[in-house]
Amino acid sequence: MRLLFDQFMKKCEDGSWTLLPSFNYKLIYRDQDVSTLMNAYFPTASELGNKEKLSQAQLFGTNFKDGLGFEYVMFYNDVEQRIVCVFQGGPHLQGMPGFLHGGAIATMIDITLGMSAIIAGEIVMTANLNINFKRPISLRSVVLINSQLDKIEGRKLFFSSNIQSIDEKILYTEATGLFIKLDPEKKLDIKELLVNSTPPA
Amino acid sequence: MRLLFDQFMKKCEDGSWTLLPSFNYKLIYRDQDVSTLMNAYFPTASELGNKEKLSQAQLFGTNFKDGLGFEYVMFYNDVEQRIVCVFQGGPHLQGMPGFLHGGAIATMIDITLGMSAIIAGEIVMTANLNINFKRPISLRSVVLINSQLDKIEGRKLFFSSNIQSIDEKILYTEATGLFIKLDPEKKLDIKELLVNSTPPA
Repeated sequence: MRLLFDQFMKKCEDGSWTLLPSFNYKLIYRDQDVSTLMNAYFPTASELGNKEKLSQAQLFGTNFKDGLGFEYVMFYNDVEQRIVCVFQGGPHLQGMPGFLHGGAIATMIDITLGMSAIIAGEIVMTANLNINFKRPISLRSVVLINSQLDKIEGRKLFFSSNIQSIDEKILYTEATGLFIKLDPEKKLDIKELLVNSTPPA
Repeated sequence: MRLLFDQFMKKCEDGSWTLLPSFNYKLIYRDQDVSTLMNAYFPTASELGNKEKLSQAQLFGTNFKDGLGFEYVMFYNDVEQRIVCVFQGGPHLQGMPGFLHGGAIATMIDITLGMSAIIAGEIVMTANLNINFKRPISLRSVVLINSQLDKIEGRKLFFSSNIQSIDEKILYTEATGLFIKLDPEKKLDIKELLVNSTPPA
């Protein structure tokens, strides 16, 4: 994993790729913005959601001890509008004995495509995920999650994604994702988002 | 949630519905059987998977403290071949502020459909999940996950599923799932599985 990280960091030097905030960073979403949008689109749901903005609330997938859960780093290529996520799933993500749970794979695809949407400057919600699980992924193996923005139609962003072995010889998973912009007028300031993200302590 | 539980427990009395082992039960899968099947179908992957059968391995979604993660109870109707799962997602499953993460919803659908396949007596792997997220689900709200076995074609089991509010007035999510039997000859003994499941300590 370290080796792959170094390879991508090298690619970042000429500006063609960008390192994104990863699993152990805290992405500073502007909660206020998101709440306003959610209220506009889902008034009843938001009433409930607002009540549940508890001190206990925590981003799904971040409650694992080091090495046991979701560990990943993402790189972004601006020209090709694609993200490569280097992902290693820990032993607490087990489904079948020795392998990743389908839900854990779906979660990583949602996270990677969601980040692609954020990079496109949009506040979005997942509307559809269609995932083909082709081969099981063993716990602790390092894999590549590729995410590509295919097209934007009005408020809809269409992504395609796959999960491959690091030598790109094994195709584990193929997926498409549809995300809906909550507000077509509103753009996230990605630079601000990246700068304000908190690195690990 | 307690009220719904009691209502379904009442339905269990005449034998039309059955209470299934739930989130805090340990389902005793016969690991040896599963390993043999995985070896037969995915020899290279299984080699890796076997290496990772660590003492640390733990079923995905079970590492939450009480009330913070996935809490659910499932009931099965034999005649209608369907499962109803009463699910309450805790604050550590957050995606958008105040709401469940798409990955957490996908995980619960995978778990519910997977249980439906186990009930059908099959050792399966998830092959496809196609999920439409129609409305956000707020943290801590109690919802119903319905799962229905639509058809079996050779080694393929087709399921449909949705997530509704408890009054069935709000449709949050619709999904289909395709599961592949690892061995068409082999049947799980559900009674044995249920009896051998370990209740919470």
